[in-house]
Order: sequence, then C-alpha cells, then structure tokens
Amino acid sequence: MKVLIIGAAGMIGRKLAERIGADGGIGERAVDELVLADVVEPQAPAGRVGNVKTLAVDISVPGAAKPLVAERPDIIYHLAAIVSGEAEADFAKGYRINLDGTRDLFEAIRAEHEASGYTPRLVFASSIAVFGAPFPDRIPDDFALTPLTSYGTQKAICELLLADYTRRGIFDGLGLRLPTICIRPGKPNKAASGFFSNILREPMAGQEAVLPVGEDVRHYFASPRAAIGFFLHAAALDTANIGPRRNLSLPGLSATVGNEIAALGRIVGERAVKLIRREPDETIMRIVSGWAPDIEARRARELGFQAETSFDEIIRAHLEDELGGTAAV
Amino acid sequence: MKVLIIGAAGMIGRKLAERIGADGGIGERAVDELVLADVVEPQAPAGRVGNVKTLAVDISVPGAAKPLVAERPDIIYHLAAIVSGEAEADFAKGYRINLDGTRDLFEAIRAEHEASGYTPRLVFASSIAVFGAPFPDRIPDDFALTPLTSYGTQKAICELLLADYTRRGIFDGLGLRLPTICIRPGKPNKAASGFFSNILREPMAGQEAVLPVGEDVRHYFASPRAAIGFFLHAAALDTANIGPRRNLSLPGLSATVGNEIAALGRIVGERAVKLIRREPDETIMRIVSGWAPDIEARRARELGFQAETSFDEIIRAHLEDELGGTAAV
Repeated sequence: MKVLIIGAAGMIGRKLAERIGADGGIGERAVDELVLADVVEPQAPAGRVGNVKTLAVDISVPGAAKPLVAERPDIIYHLAAIVSGEAEADFAKGYRINLDGTRDLFEAIRAEHEASGYTPRLVFASSIAVFGAPFPDRIPDDFALTPLTSYGTQKAICELLLADYTRRGIFDGLGLRLPTICIRPGKPNKAASGFFSNILREPMAGQEAVLPVGEDVRHYFASPRAAIGFFLHAAALDTANIGPRRNLSLPGLSATVGNEIAALGRIVGERAVKLIRREPDETIMRIVSGWAPDIEARRARELGFQAETSFDEIIRAHLEDELGGTAAV
Repeated sequence: MKVLIIGAAGMIGRKLAERIGADGGIGERAVDELVLADVVEPQAPAGRVGNVKTLAVDISVPGAAKPLVAERPDIIYHLAAIVSGEAEADFAKGYRINLDGTRDLFEAIRAEHEASGYTPRLVFASSIAVFGAPFPDRIPDDFALTPLTSYGTQKAICELLLADYTRRGIFDGLGLRLPTICIRPGKPNKAASGFFSNILREPMAGQEAVLPVGEDVRHYFASPRAAIGFFLHAAALDTANIGPRRNLSLPGLSATVGNEIAALGRIVGERAVKLIRREPDETIMRIVSGWAPDIEARRARELGFQAETSFDEIIRAHLEDELGGTAAV
C-alpha cells in the first residue's frame, strides 16, 4: 500500500510518519511506499517501510498536487495548513493555502478519478475551530458550523468540499475535527492556546510557565498520541456504512485548567506545580472564553475513535513519548 | 442610493427589480440608480427609478464582477446561480458559477474595501438545500449544514465565506435561506420540486397537472411575493446587533400536498382540483423524501422576516400577482 502525507513536516505529520515507519503499516495493511511532502522537505522516518520519498512541495501553487496524485497513493493524509493566527493575520494567504491548496488537491484527485477510476481514501485534518460561540455546553454532532476565525471558515469549507467529493465517489473522504492537542511538544509559542500545553510541558522540563487564565477555564483536549491514533484509525476504517456525513467531531477530554494542574501534581509532583506562575491576561481570557468546553463526538466514538479520559493519561503519554519516562523536576 | 442586482433576469431578480422600480426605493430610502446584471441582459423595469442600467455579465469569468463593484453600489443583491439539477449534472460548471463566481464578487468587494473603505450591504440568495436528511421534524437555526447536493454544498460554502467577509468588516452580509418558492410562475419545468407549483398553477390556468407523490408529503414554502419581501427587508435591516451568524433560515409555511389541494378547492373550486392527475413517480418520491418538512427560522422571524401562514394566502398572492385576480377555471 502506498501512503502520501501532505504536511509531513508539521508536528502531527512527523509523528504520523514515524509511527507508520515503526509499524511498517497501518492497521493490518503493510505500507511499502511512503511519500512525505511539505513546503519544507520533511525528514524520512526510521523504520520498516521500504521506499520513503521526501518532497518539498508548496500546495498553494496551482497544479502542485498533480504529480503527488499521479503516483496514485491508496491513502492521502492532508494535514497541510497555516495556523489560526497566521490565517487571521493574512487573509489572502490563509485562503490561498488552507482553501485553494486543498481544493487544488481535490481537483487533482478528480482528474485522476475521471481518467482512471482512481478513488483513494482521503483523511483531512479539520479542527474544532469550525465551531463558534455561542454553543451548548456539550456540542452535538449535528451542531451548526459557525466559525469565528478565517482558519475555522477555511476548515469548514474544506469539510463541505470533502463531503461533496465523497458523495460523488471521487474519493473516500473523512474529515477529522481534532480537539486542541495537549501536550504539544517543543517550545512555548504565541498561540492563544499555548498555555494549555506550556503549564504542563515546561514544569516537567524544570522550567517556569505562565498561566494567563483562571483555573476554571474548561476546554477540550487530546494528546499527540491520541491524534496519531485518530489518523491511523481513519485510514483503516470501513466506510461502507458511514453515509454522507464524513466530517467527524473526535473524542477528547473535557477538562479545566484546574484539572490539568491537579494531574501534574499527582503524576509529577508539587515541585512541578510550583513552577506555574499566574499572570492574568485579559486578551487571552477573552479569546479562550469563545472556545468549546466540550464536544459530544458520539458518532466518532461509535466508529471506534478513542482519546484519553483523564489528564493523568495525557501527562503519562508525554512522559513516555517525549521525556523517556522521567520528568526533569 | 445605488442598488446592484446580479442575477436580475431570473424569476426572483426580475420581480425584485420590478418592485424596486414601482416603489422607487427600498424601505424608506430612495433608489436613484439600479444596475441589473445577468448572463443574458435583463429587462429594465418600469417605474420611478431615474437611472436604470442593464448589463450582460458572466460572473463565472474571473474579474467580471470588478466593474460592477467599481461603481460602489450601496446594496448588492447576489442572486446569480445555476440551479440544483444543472449543478448536479455538471460538477465543474456548478462550482465555477455558484462558488467561484461568488468568491470573485466577494474578492472584488475586498479590493475596493481595501482601496477606499467601501463596505456595501450584500444580500445573498442561499437555499434550504444547505440542509440534508436526516434532520429533526423542525430544523432549528443552529442545525448542521449537511447538504446532499453539489448545489447545496456551493450555497453552504458561500454562506461561510459571507460570514467571514462580514466578520472582517469587508462588507455587511446577509445570507437568506429561501424556502421552496411556490407558486412559481411560468411553465412546468423538470425540477423535482416542480409539481408543488404545477398542481396549483396549471389548474388555475385551466390546464391539467401531474401529481407524482402522495398527499401526505410535507415541505416548506414561501410565495414569490414573500421572497421579494425577504430581499427588501434584508436590504433595509439594521444589522448592528445581529452578530456574526449572518445566514438565516427564513420563515415559511410547512404544509402537505393535501393542504395545497384543499386550499385550491377553497379558493378556486373543485373544478380546479379535478385537473390534478395522480401519476406516482418513485424517483421523485425518493428525492422529495430527503427534503426538509419544516424549519424553525426563529431568528429570522425575530428580525422581522415574514412569510405566508396558509396555502390560501399563497394561492391568493398568485391570483393577484400573476392572473389579475381571476383563475381561468
């Protein structure tokens, strides 16, 4: 089986490629060719996949997807996007990359489909940013898409395209609305959501972290490990009986900042908790107040998607996957 | 005030132009210039608007909207689209006209906005085709967009764009999800929804009409007169406190085919009812079974949009507006 990952240099893309490399396949099917593309050339993972290609491709250039699709991968992961803050800061760039880049990929598949009957599985990384306040405490699967950012708008539009191309039989698509990923590895960044990860990751590395909101702030999370699990599950899923609604709110953990901190104390210790410095930030509080506190994700759970059920699990996953099992504090 | 109608040669566009011409304005504001554009040059209406321009413009040609926007109309009605059946039959054409044509218009407004601060009111004709079964008996305002046609997908995508451009302050947009228009004037057509109008209009003209479904089929309607009222109301509405959800399910009448026929009997007489010939059609039955039986439209009603509350009213509107008050039977 041949697998293409577009956006393979990002955090999720890299981990997904590493996992496929380590497993040598997805589910019960062996992967014999793995093509990794991103705007900067991705790194090839170690592992058991024979043929790995790494390509620098800018999908916002019209026609750029065509040669990727011409190799007729069985599974296409489309993870490439610019992030929420950048799409908000640069209107045209956000639409060019996040919408036109996706549509160009879908059109390349349509051309190949019409030429040869090619119908790949396509797994698209969407986001809970397709939802915008006000919403119920627990957002049901059939809730309206009312994004409050250009990023969320672009993801919602791509979801609609994905459903229509799938209904037409052009590809077999699944859109995955990812919860906020926590704990993100790497350095603190300026994303408004960064603190959810920072207040765990930095103390576990012996560093101070800033908490800009109150402990009662509630949001919806899954670990990077769970996210990779979603993408693997989506590639292997039997879609025969799923029907035309192909964009799924994924399972996650609804938890407060207080829940995060309590779990940090339990799993790592009070020395870690003491490294969290309270520094209230009205701007971040306002932004975060518009985010989803909980999502029902009933269909995705019924379809076998799984996420963590406590922050203890999320912290243990980070310890095991990023820190070799031991915190530095 | 300057008003532009794109799609002015269609049934709604023509009636809207005639009404603005007759009234000489919209709400309390006089219209001194009316620009009518369509892929075929629209007819100028009679009336009290001084300056009327009629233009043949194909909005699916990139850049075609630019000269229309350069005249800086205060109100832009965007009604141009190919219909559901054609968008389903020709995938590329549907996206080119219904999506790219709309986006090109929105981008032309953005260029003018960025150059000069221009921020028109934009009223977009959307459709209840943005909803797809299964849905509740009465679709609430915050129900998911799950279209089951390419036409509905294109309308839903344009709704998302409209909301984002409005949130950005580029224009002041309102998307109107029209109920099925009944009684459509003119000849019977091959649209699956055609019979809802045919079984009233044809008998009122002394002609036989075919009913392909059972009398218990329920759907959601508004008259052409109500539709024109929606568009006039949307142009005059104070949007200051509407918030970011700019696409409205509009009020309509939820009624069965049996309700239609009973009203025809009451208003026109049993001679008219006898002209309806039952000829069951499995294909049409199946298509219609996926259509919305009722829509809540709470926000639009609160914002002052109004539709008929009985088929008696809908039939009387047709008698007055199309037949000079008297049926031919």
